[in-house]
Amino acid sequence: MRGKAVFAIVAIGLLTWCWPGATHAGVDKEKLLKDTGVYGTFAVFKVDEDWWKLDKAARASAAAEVKAVFQKHGDTVATDTYLLRGLVEKADFFVRVHSTEMLHNQNFLVDLMGTTLGKHLVNTYTFNGITKGPNYVPSLPDDLKAALKTPPDPGPKPYAIVVPVRKDAEWWITGQDGKNAMMKEHTEATTAYLKTVKRKLYHASGLDDLDFITYFETAKLDDFNNLIIALERVKENRHNRQFGNPTLLGTIRPLDEILEILSR
Amino acid sequence: MRGKAVFAIVAIGLLTWCWPGATHAGVDKEKLLKDTGVYGTFAVFKVDEDWWKLDKAARASAAAEVKAVFQKHGDTVATDTYLLRGLVEKADFFVRVHSTEMLHNQNFLVDLMGTTLGKHLVNTYTFNGITKGPNYVPSLPDDLKAALKTPPDPGPKPYAIVVPVRKDAEWWITGQDGKNAMMKEHTEATTAYLKTVKRKLYHASGLDDLDFITYFETAKLDDFNNLIIALERVKENRHNRQFGNPTLLGTIRPLDEILEILSR
Amino acid sequence: MRGKAVFAIVAIGLLTWCWPGATHAGVDKEKLLKDTGVYGTFAVFKVDEDWWKLDKAARASAAAEVKAVFQKHGDTVATDTYLLRGLVEKADFFVRVHSTEMLHNQNFLVDLMGTTLGKHLVNTYTFNGITKGPNYVPSLPDDLKAALKTPPDPGPKPYAIVVPVRKDAEWWITGQDGKNAMMKEHTEATTAYLKTVKRKLYHASGLDDLDFITYFETAKLDDFNNLIIALERVKENRHNRQFGNPTLLGTIRPLDEILEILSR
Amino acid sequence: MRGKAVFAIVAIGLLTWCWPGATHAGVDKEKLLKDTGVYGTFAVFKVDEDWWKLDKAARASAAAEVKAVFQKHGDTVATDTYLLRGLVEKADFFVRVHSTEMLHNQNFLVDLMGTTLGKHLVNTYTFNGITKGPNYVPSLPDDLKAALKTPPDPGPKPYAIVVPVRKDAEWWITGQDGKNAMMKEHTEATTAYLKTVKRKLYHASGLDDLDFITYFETAKLDDFNNLIIALERVKENRHNRQFGNPTLLGTIRPLDEILEILSR
Amino acid sequence: MRGKAVFAIVAIGLLTWCWPGATHAGVDKEKLLKDTGVYGTFAVFKVDEDWWKLDKAARASAAAEVKAVFQKHGDTVATDTYLLRGLVEKADFFVRVHSTEMLHNQNFLVDLMGTTLGKHLVNTYTFNGITKGPNYVPSLPDDLKAALKTPPDPGPKPYAIVVPVRKDAEWWITGQDGKNAMMKEHTEATTAYLKTVKRKLYHASGLDDLDFITYFETAKLDDFNNLIIALERVKENRHNRQFGNPTLLGTIRPLDEILEILSR
Repeated sequence: MRGKAVFAIVAIGLLTWCWPGATHAGVDKEKLLKDTGVYGTFAVFKVDEDWWKLDKAARASAAAEVKAVFQKHGDTVATDTYLLRGLVEKADFFVRVHSTEMLHNQNFLVDLMGTTLGKHLVNTYTFNGITKGPNYVPSLPDDLKAALKTPPDPGPKPYAIVVPVRKDAEWWITGQDGKNAMMKEHTEATTAYLKTVKRKLYHASGLDDLDFITYFETAKLDDFNNLIIALERVKENRHNRQFGNPTLLGTIRPLDEILEILSR
Repeated sequence: MRGKAVFAIVAIGLLTWCWPGATHAGVDKEKLLKDTGVYGTFAVFKVDEDWWKLDKAARASAAAEVKAVFQKHGDTVATDTYLLRGLVEKADFFVRVHSTEMLHNQNFLVDLMGTTLGKHLVNTYTFNGITKGPNYVPSLPDDLKAALKTPPDPGPKPYAIVVPVRKDAEWWITGQDGKNAMMKEHTEATTAYLKTVKRKLYHASGLDDLDFITYFETAKLDDFNNLIIALERVKENRHNRQFGNPTLLGTIRPLDEILEILSR
Repeated sequence: MRGKAVFAIVAIGLLTWCWPGATHAGVDKEKLLKDTGVYGTFAVFKVDEDWWKLDKAARASAAAEVKAVFQKHGDTVATDTYLLRGLVEKADFFVRVHSTEMLHNQNFLVDLMGTTLGKHLVNTYTFNGITKGPNYVPSLPDDLKAALKTPPDPGPKPYAIVVPVRKDAEWWITGQDGKNAMMKEHTEATTAYLKTVKRKLYHASGLDDLDFITYFETAKLDDFNNLIIALERVKENRHNRQFGNPTLLGTIRPLDEILEILSR
Repeated sequence: MRGKAVFAIVAIGLLTWCWPGATHAGVDKEKLLKDTGVYGTFAVFKVDEDWWKLDKAARASAAAEVKAVFQKHGDTVATDTYLLRGLVEKADFFVRVHSTEMLHNQNFLVDLMGTTLGKHLVNTYTFNGITKGPNYVPSLPDDLKAALKTPPDPGPKPYAIVVPVRKDAEWWITGQDGKNAMMKEHTEATTAYLKTVKRKLYHASGLDDLDFITYFETAKLDDFNNLIIALERVKENRHNRQFGNPTLLGTIRPLDEILEILSR
Repeated sequence: MRGKAVFAIVAIGLLTWCWPGATHAGVDKEKLLKDTGVYGTFAVFKVDEDWWKLDKAARASAAAEVKAVFQKHGDTVATDTYLLRGLVEKADFFVRVHSTEMLHNQNFLVDLMGTTLGKHLVNTYTFNGITKGPNYVPSLPDDLKAALKTPPDPGPKPYAIVVPVRKDAEWWITGQDGKNAMMKEHTEATTAYLKTVKRKLYHASGLDDLDFITYFETAKLDDFNNLIIALERVKENRHNRQFGNPTLLGTIRPLDEILEILSR
């Protein structure tokens, strides 16, 4: 009961931020989130110790500056914000940025880092990737293809998890049939969680020291824990040279709420 | 003799904190510590060098602020506090937080980190996990099942040790029979220490860069050292990709005592 | 459409800096970029937090100081500048320095680090290398040799990526025939991207903790991502002990623009 | 000749500190150094950069405070002090603490870190261990057992070296006969150095991210270098997952001398 | 032409410092550089950011203090100084210290770190080693022995490179014949570079987390790069667990010049 109430509050915050109203003439975020060829940058920040020495008024005006930067770039980038503070050491929050050119992501982040708050942010991690069409789905059997169409449960999914992945050389050198077989097993392991865990994949080879950025949203962290265990049990797991390190576990929060937490 | 006296003092402090009295209408801590599906967060902190530049009065008022945060969240989270200072580099203390939603753990820690003391805390490590029912006990022979019911020796157990664990891919890919056989050997190695070493297990896959968080309490560190050696000698040890790093060795201390040490 | 406009602006900036006019009697940069036996140093910097506390006038005068150092050394070194801020954690920009003696690179960088801005720069990474003639091209079949002569598409290539590489002992101990065969496969994987991705190679063994510094320029990061995936799929990839770590993804920007960003 | 004079000076300092006179009613240090079941903590410190900004008088009074802490805990812990400055990066000195309860070690170190100097100490490394009886000696042939009774050469041994060790899973899983055979070879390699290199062993499994802490004293670092090479040549070396990292090479110095160096 | 002029200037500086004149009654440096049983310490430093906030006069007087420390210890240690700034991240310069007792090296470095400049130095790396007679030369064929007597080309060698090395357990456990064969191949690979690259070897097992410190001087970094590639191609390279990390590439510079650079 209590849990649901908590989710509802988070969800309202989320809605407020994600759909800022029909009057906003910004990028088509929903399209960016679905399209291939979209560049995603995950920029993770930790507030430095000097930030806390600013007085309340300075922090409030700094928050306004940040909001203006988000608005200014609303025509080129779509953004989501997440609170990591408390759950991940060395990180307070991260911004997920989507656009059709990596340069837009950079320009937005350069402006964000140039604000008063930005000058107090330590950029702990940054992951860059690009979205693509599914690699292995065409090779899957029909029943598995059908299962993949299961719609996620409605309702808010307040938790987000980002897991960067790097495969070993053997994975890449394995032929397409071998990879298809391993990915079939991998996909089967995920079907039990399609309703409660949403997933998005970014390809990162050459854009970062990663091959993939995997992004998840869920309301049920116990299901997510079981999903990852299921994925650890398939043979493809032998080829994960890096899986996490860092794992970013956070909650989806509107920018306003994150700024409010940093301004207290 | 002296040793016992020391333990007694620590134990009294422990009791004072853990059972704050029947009038407190907070979470049912005992239930949280036994239930499955409970989220545990281990948040490890080091006080920064500027903290020590505050004067005594500022530090005393900062301590009061911290206590208020613990009380405010007493309805949603159960907490335990541990002193690492002196025994673990880069860490002064940690808080173990339990609740039925990871969001509660985060909200408590965000508030704690937002206090005057909190703004001087470096969050060295954080581990997140979830409790579950036993995986392997059902497959154990009856005599071993019976042995596992040995109650721990009464009396205080002032030392706590946290060892994060990550298994290799081969462990996860091994079939259930193979894992059962290895866990039987593992369990046999622990029976000699059931009386003097208490243990609690958290599952962490996907919630952190770990598979398990193992937590121990003991009054006899020599027994604990022997227990770990016994566990190093079983074949399951081949599958520990990470065991410790960090190992957190500390003493259970009430919040008041930790705050007093940091306020001297 | 918009993307092209963005590129055009970047390109104009780039031209302004790279070809500072016929009246400049500096090193022959074009020759340095083509010759073998040229020493290249990649010096990566992060501005420290105190920099931002300087007032505008101080920062403007610091920028002028930096420009004077670039000019002073224009007779011995050729330089290019790149913005990493926003896309790479722990780095704001890097300078690529070319000259006929490593000592010139050092003297230039010592002067740069001795400016007011320089004293606020943290030198995050430095890579040193030397250019050489192609090792494997002579052994390639004629059609592949011909393909390698494909000129890159005209037009600006605003993105630059630097990937440091270290091979394993087995790579070096493999005989020339074995290496030729692997490099033939490697080269074949790159032909599809010769038009959209420019590449330059530096040899680093003994000059740094690397064997190679690979440098790329492109306007199409999706092609670059595919190129790296193609290279991950060839057997030579088994011998990459280090590939990236760090991968530097940035945009080519004239010094003036970088200084302007740091002076805001 | 000069070398001997230097050693004599160090030795006098050492004697002054280690045997503070018959009137001191502290722990029986000699017994602690011989007994099994004794807890040893090696706490390594680096002075921070702000320490040096204190004026001379402040530093002198800080030194007196430190001495008082050593005296206060003289009833529960035995201590030795070592200078690392100059020979080990990131460390200025370390204290070796022995007592019958790890809690005593912690309480002493908490008090030490709570002094004015302590608040300027960065705790670079801490190793915790316990002493035990010899594991392998009973299985050695009689002549080797006899050799092990060789008394060390008299005279001061001004150098101390600490090498933390972690074995691999195969070591622990190897049966007792296999370990006996490897330890016989190991022990034979050390006999040539029994006169010039003293050794003490601590068991650390579960108390730290180590299995052993090996501690050495010598006047002849060339012999010590040869001893370690001899140990690298035996098959047991295959099972050292960690050997050093860090290796602490320092000189035994009385507390007064270390405080004097830090107060200049 | 220009390159030669540069070298000449560096060389004159070098001469000034290394041979301070016949009137100096210090250690016999030439003997220390040739003898076995000599202890070498490589102490690498980075100036901290506060150093640059001192005014010119303070820095000049700090430089004089440093020179006095070098002179004071001239009876016990021989020193060389090297500029890394610009070519190695996290390091500005290093001092190579030789003496007959490690204690002398420590006492010199403690005094150096106790100066006003020293208190602003971060000790990034320290390597300790000892010189010994050649291990493998006696087993080499006569023509290779003769080749090793090739004198280096005359003229200044302004570049110095330090490469720390750690071998794997298999290297150490390999019998003398096997090592002789590998070192024969290793030595053959070096003969082409005997004229242009000078080399000195230190043994470090137990004195540091290394087995060897290899030190090189050259005027031709292209030759040095080729030498290291040649060494990567021999089978002994399979046994290098660590080779570099860090590689220190710098220029030999007299103390005065380094102090001048740091005082600008």
